[in-house]
Amino acid sequence: MSDFTIREITDHLGGKLLSGNPDSVVSGVSAIQSADAGDICYCGNAKYFRYLSTTKALAVIVSKPVETSAECVILVDKEYDAFRKVLLLLKPDRSSGFTDIHPSAVIHPSADTGSNAQIGPLTVVDRNCILGDGCVLGAGCVLGPAVILGENCFIHPNVTLLEGTSVGSNVIIHSGTVVGSDGFGFVPDSSGMHKKIPQNGNVAIGSHVEIGANCTIDRAVTGSTEIGDHTKLDNLIQVAHNVCIGRGCFIAAQTGIAGSTTIGNGVTFGGQVGVGGHIVINDGAVIAAKSGVTKNVDSGVTLSGNPARPHMETLRLGAAVARLPKIIELVKELNAGKIGETGD
Amino acid sequence: MSDFTIREITDHLGGKLLSGNPDSVVSGVSAIQSADAGDICYCGNAKYFRYLSTTKALAVIVSKPVETSAECVILVDKEYDAFRKVLLLLKPDRSSGFTDIHPSAVIHPSADTGSNAQIGPLTVVDRNCILGDGCVLGAGCVLGPAVILGENCFIHPNVTLLEGTSVGSNVIIHSGTVVGSDGFGFVPDSSGMHKKIPQNGNVAIGSHVEIGANCTIDRAVTGSTEIGDHTKLDNLIQVAHNVCIGRGCFIAAQTGIAGSTTIGNGVTFGGQVGVGGHIVINDGAVIAAKSGVTKNVDSGVTLSGNPARPHMETLRLGAAVARLPKIIELVKELNAGKIGETGD
Amino acid sequence: MSDFTIREITDHLGGKLLSGNPDSVVSGVSAIQSADAGDICYCGNAKYFRYLSTTKALAVIVSKPVETSAECVILVDKEYDAFRKVLLLLKPDRSSGFTDIHPSAVIHPSADTGSNAQIGPLTVVDRNCILGDGCVLGAGCVLGPAVILGENCFIHPNVTLLEGTSVGSNVIIHSGTVVGSDGFGFVPDSSGMHKKIPQNGNVAIGSHVEIGANCTIDRAVTGSTEIGDHTKLDNLIQVAHNVCIGRGCFIAAQTGIAGSTTIGNGVTFGGQVGVGGHIVINDGAVIAAKSGVTKNVDSGVTLSGNPARPHMETLRLGAAVARLPKIIELVKELNAGKIGETGD
Repeated sequence: MSDFTIREITDHLGGKLLSGNPDSVVSGVSAIQSADAGDICYCGNAKYFRYLSTTKALAVIVSKPVETSAECVILVDKEYDAFRKVLLLLKPDRSSGFTDIHPSAVIHPSADTGSNAQIGPLTVVDRNCILGDGCVLGAGCVLGPAVILGENCFIHPNVTLLEGTSVGSNVIIHSGTVVGSDGFGFVPDSSGMHKKIPQNGNVAIGSHVEIGANCTIDRAVTGSTEIGDHTKLDNLIQVAHNVCIGRGCFIAAQTGIAGSTTIGNGVTFGGQVGVGGHIVINDGAVIAAKSGVTKNVDSGVTLSGNPARPHMETLRLGAAVARLPKIIELVKELNAGKIGETGD
Repeated sequence: MSDFTIREITDHLGGKLLSGNPDSVVSGVSAIQSADAGDICYCGNAKYFRYLSTTKALAVIVSKPVETSAECVILVDKEYDAFRKVLLLLKPDRSSGFTDIHPSAVIHPSADTGSNAQIGPLTVVDRNCILGDGCVLGAGCVLGPAVILGENCFIHPNVTLLEGTSVGSNVIIHSGTVVGSDGFGFVPDSSGMHKKIPQNGNVAIGSHVEIGANCTIDRAVTGSTEIGDHTKLDNLIQVAHNVCIGRGCFIAAQTGIAGSTTIGNGVTFGGQVGVGGHIVINDGAVIAAKSGVTKNVDSGVTLSGNPARPHMETLRLGAAVARLPKIIELVKELNAGKIGETGD
Repeated sequence: MSDFTIREITDHLGGKLLSGNPDSVVSGVSAIQSADAGDICYCGNAKYFRYLSTTKALAVIVSKPVETSAECVILVDKEYDAFRKVLLLLKPDRSSGFTDIHPSAVIHPSADTGSNAQIGPLTVVDRNCILGDGCVLGAGCVLGPAVILGENCFIHPNVTLLEGTSVGSNVIIHSGTVVGSDGFGFVPDSSGMHKKIPQNGNVAIGSHVEIGANCTIDRAVTGSTEIGDHTKLDNLIQVAHNVCIGRGCFIAAQTGIAGSTTIGNGVTFGGQVGVGGHIVINDGAVIAAKSGVTKNVDSGVTLSGNPARPHMETLRLGAAVARLPKIIELVKELNAGKIGETGD
């Protein structure tokens, strides 16, 4: 990270400096409530407006003029988008000291690691793997046989991509994630025990996908478990065999999706959601945190609760339950009156 | 995978060819709704009957005669069991290019790796480990001191089996799983902070067990955390210290079982179930997805909900809650009438 | 583990031998219900008193005199604390056969591994890492650039500590855990897809912290995701970016905490809890298993349910719902009576 002046940053953002010295030097990026002198921050969420008057930041990025204790105010169209650009500009250099292909990596002679690959220490690349140009594999990864990566994929340390996994370009996979583990498929035998169903398929991941840490994506029985382009998964997510997730979905941590479920495009999941097997969730649906989805979901609806219902209905039922103890009292009183009458 | 004719497959299944050319060659296995020309599939689930008339599959395996667009119809007793046999027959060859014991593996001289072991690159086997004949350890695994495996175990890449773990024969453990981490045991000290309770026990896994990816099985305080023969665990499951799971259980993803709980034989768990500590779940119980089990469970019952109740009761209460807003309206009307009367 | 006599153990505990031969030799430690001859156990929990009369243990540790089949009874102030000392005394020796810094570890020349480090086989330590004296890194770990550990940390096999992670002293991190993965931060672009927000911050872990297996702790956008001194995390826990957890907290397995949430000191979480983002949970709160926390939580309160409410209220509403089917019957009868009247 080099130092930049307020002028340089304002220009980079295509913004307008409303106040402050354009020659001041920015020393860091931070959140408005914890900024130190010299820091640049942004303010867009109403929850944080109260910090405007006390922040120690040198500069604040906003999308409308504000009163603030910060010396510099930079006006932009979209403050969060501008903040993203500042984060990119001031990203600390923490690149690995191990560059190129580390000699301790074990790469099968039949594997093609593309141009400009960076492969960390003690990473394994098995036979017939094909890496597009510019891929980075962190230390300690295992790529099983016939794994295919597109260009510019970034696979963080200790990721496991198992045999036959196919990944598009510009994909990021975080540490500890396992792609291509066997699906959970068994058939009872005559003794009541379970025989394993061979999982002959693979996992096919699109481009511009990001998968968080310690996720598990199971291979299909036949065909592919699919994750569409631009879909983003948080940490500790379970995707079972033959699940098909569309484009541009957004799935928060610890969600689990059971086998053969199909998810459309632009679907959003809160954390700890559970989705049953053989279900269809259509485009643009939103599933609130901790919901349990037990049947098909229409396009664009917002569900919550377990079993998941339209969110307004969940709220209505929740409000009704909250009133239930009083209602029960009232019913008892009414009943006492009635019993009084019938007791005549 | 070699090519097989319809006749060869029908014979292999002990089935009967109801229609189609026995000399047609099968090129792949797939699901009925996504089959390509040349594929073989099965149809047994009523949800998928509608695809029979349009499938592009060459052949469909069924347990009763059907009308279908597929050229060949193979009749068998159990269509899913037959499909399993076809999957085994046509399993693609994706074996590792690293055979035998890879020279990069670090094996302590005191370890006994048995006959015909296959040990992947960069796997560690610590002192006094004993492997039965025919074990496969994928790349990047760590076996701590005194880990014992029976015969023909298949340990996928990046698995961690910690000190003293004992595993039976024919066990499969998927990538990222940790067996033998310390149980979560602390005792408050005088300052209100927590002192660690040493976890002196181990984990003992039976035979024919399969454990999914990124699970965690904690070692016991004393004695063993136990997983019985033929039990199958899906991904991301937590088994706490001193849990004892019986034979032939079936546990879906993201379930968590708290310390010292005992689970009988043939118990089935849906996904994301939570079970409290020091609980007994008896043989054959079924716990629906997302349930929270807070007390002992009788043999053979089916529970759901949080707190978990007999499933029929959960359904009855759920239906009652769904009617609650209307009931509240009715009570208000009744009460208005009463008030009208008493206001006389 | 060496052998100790009852006298030696009683002295070590500062206890009093109420009965039995002080020269008897203890051969193992176990739970009262599964003890073998020669074992020592404790009994403090009322659930286990029934085993006192039948236990095969040689000795039982108690905090008040009891009748028991065990030959020796050792009286102490706090039986569980005493049992902890016995576990420490009789801990089996299962240390790794790989001592010092294993030659297969890949350590960047710029890294400082401190004095008396033990670094397992095939572990990677990247540039500018600094380890305090006496740290143990198990096999297969990856420490990214500029990771800092205090003294006497114990990092179990296959842990991933990513760039810039800072850890205090006397910290234990269990296998498979990932510290410093990117937070889940995106901003929609004009096409409705999501652009990644750079995650420039790090994770800062205090001293005397223990983190279970296969957890994920995300790095901050700016600043640090923080885990305070003496806090203990169980397995498979998700801590999102910019979460701040105080001192002495206690978090059970599979809990997830969303971004920018602040948790005070001495907060306790049951398993599978979900906490929303940008929430404040104050000191000493207790959150029951499977709760969903959706708003700020006052000091010292106990919450349960989803959405989480004060525990007594959750119980009251649960009891009311359990009575609902009967209440509905009653309302129907009342209404039938009313209709009868109005039908006159």
